[in-house]
Amino acid sequence: MGKIVYGIDVGGTSIKFGLFNSEGVRLITKFEKDTPKTNQQTSVLESIFNTIQETNQMYGYSELDIEGIGLAVPCPVKDGIVNSCANIKWERMNIRKELADKFSNQVHVVVSNDANIAAYGENASLEIPFRNAIVITLGTGVGSGIILNGEILEGSTGMGGEIGHTHVYDGPIETCGCGAKGCLEQMCASKGMTNYALELSKEMSTSINLNQITIKDIFEAAKLGDKLCLKVVDRAAEYLGKAASVVALTIDPDAFIIGGGISKAGQYFLDKIKNAYQKYARFSTGNKPFLLAKTGNDAGIIGAAHYAIKK
Amino acid sequence: MGKIVYGIDVGGTSIKFGLFNSEGVRLITKFEKDTPKTNQQTSVLESIFNTIQETNQMYGYSELDIEGIGLAVPCPVKDGIVNSCANIKWERMNIRKELADKFSNQVHVVVSNDANIAAYGENASLEIPFRNAIVITLGTGVGSGIILNGEILEGSTGMGGEIGHTHVYDGPIETCGCGAKGCLEQMCASKGMTNYALELSKEMSTSINLNQITIKDIFEAAKLGDKLCLKVVDRAAEYLGKAASVVALTIDPDAFIIGGGISKAGQYFLDKIKNAYQKYARFSTGNKPFLLAKTGNDAGIIGAAHYAIKK
Repeated sequence: MGKIVYGIDVGGTSIKFGLFNSEGVRLITKFEKDTPKTNQQTSVLESIFNTIQETNQMYGYSELDIEGIGLAVPCPVKDGIVNSCANIKWERMNIRKELADKFSNQVHVVVSNDANIAAYGENASLEIPFRNAIVITLGTGVGSGIILNGEILEGSTGMGGEIGHTHVYDGPIETCGCGAKGCLEQMCASKGMTNYALELSKEMSTSINLNQITIKDIFEAAKLGDKLCLKVVDRAAEYLGKAASVVALTIDPDAFIIGGGISKAGQYFLDKIKNAYQKYARFSTGNKPFLLAKTGNDAGIIGAAHYAIKK
Repeated sequence: MGKIVYGIDVGGTSIKFGLFNSEGVRLITKFEKDTPKTNQQTSVLESIFNTIQETNQMYGYSELDIEGIGLAVPCPVKDGIVNSCANIKWERMNIRKELADKFSNQVHVVVSNDANIAAYGENASLEIPFRNAIVITLGTGVGSGIILNGEILEGSTGMGGEIGHTHVYDGPIETCGCGAKGCLEQMCASKGMTNYALELSKEMSTSINLNQITIKDIFEAAKLGDKLCLKVVDRAAEYLGKAASVVALTIDPDAFIIGGGISKAGQYFLDKIKNAYQKYARFSTGNKPFLLAKTGNDAGIIGAAHYAIKK
């Protein structure tokens, strides 16, 4: 029996576990557990440790078979340390060390932010991963992660690759979840798109049901030529392309990878983003590939497993 | 006699040479030579090689005393290779290899873009250099360079840290030197500032001489309360602060260092940039230090020398 690796994606509601063969990062099993709600400063890592022990036992593995454990967490991380977390009551915790210390032998543990880990996983899952890539995940929010020289770019305080909250819009707009106004996320994530559709509907007609707008409806109608929906989609693509052009003149990545729920709109949306990008790109940065992400909902556990093996 | 290092800053008009003691990067001598105007594909590196040989002879050094040679060049560089250069007729040249091969023993040569090298030098000249910093140089243009994990961030095609040409302005504006419109440089470099002063002068009065506007005059008048000049300075600071906030959520550096001619306006301008930055900064990125650069006109040769020793 070869070595194994755990990829674990910690969320405020549930914790996703993936057990993989270390070689080739092939999935053996995956499952979810509820995130403990009380005493989270100790209970979350205890629950993770216990679940690993139980899973090991169930599948006939021992601690010595574990090549690594990767943990994706929903907050900024710097060198395995979390200072505060919006979704879990963690304060000034060395997550990496605390989890590693629970094992009797020194098990190799890595911890990083969930968007960064997902980005790492998307890139690592490519046939030939890029050395430098940015992965932008479009859904309820705009998440992103940067891979530079094959490593996650955490930055000085763990805020590397957080382009979803860069300021891109000066006009009147409601307050973003981050507390500020005019974030990229407000122009390109699902809420911003549906809000914009409602705003436009005061002056334009549309074929979609305005009482129950979905992103899927917006894209489908846009493809069929609905002018209002086309405007909503084009604005999102415009801001994403512009933001990507700024990233290109900052870190100059090899490629852009677009993932998340909204990216289900597929090549149609990707082409629009790339067109906008090329309008703003300068010098030698205009011809970078734009790819659709592939790992879907398992990006977190897959990325965590890949990162645990790599580090 | 200890080892020596050459820091060389290649421009379209002249080539600046610096000879340094390797230990402590202490300057022994510096001088300039005209850049050869014909057959540049071969003549420029030949001239550099010959000048090094002559200087060595003059100061009693041999090739074996050279710990390294650092070359700053006025174009994008990737792994020592230049594909094309606006100011010197270089095409698809491995500058690093071609210069190194001229020496009989293997002399250690490094090559990078001049803005990146200057940024490296500014940071390396600090008492305690930062691991991660962005240096923004304000003058005729907006140059910048990013130091990440102590290394120059060249990026995929050598365009890393070129934030001067990120798109920041959608309004009507003349074409930028890069061929596009709305670049950061157009809002914050000297030409953009004097143009804006002229534009405002149609509606506002000012104490400065509009027939011969200098950046120095604009800053001095702004400090004395000239409303027009204050508006010009504030707009430049606003765009720089906003751009810095985007950089912070991309690479999350430890610090921002501001240099170049315009930075002679000193703490007054730095405070304005930092205020604008804090308005747009998110999460844990709001408290980063903003420093004034110190190396001045020698940033190129000093940076090249530091980089040659480090690599």
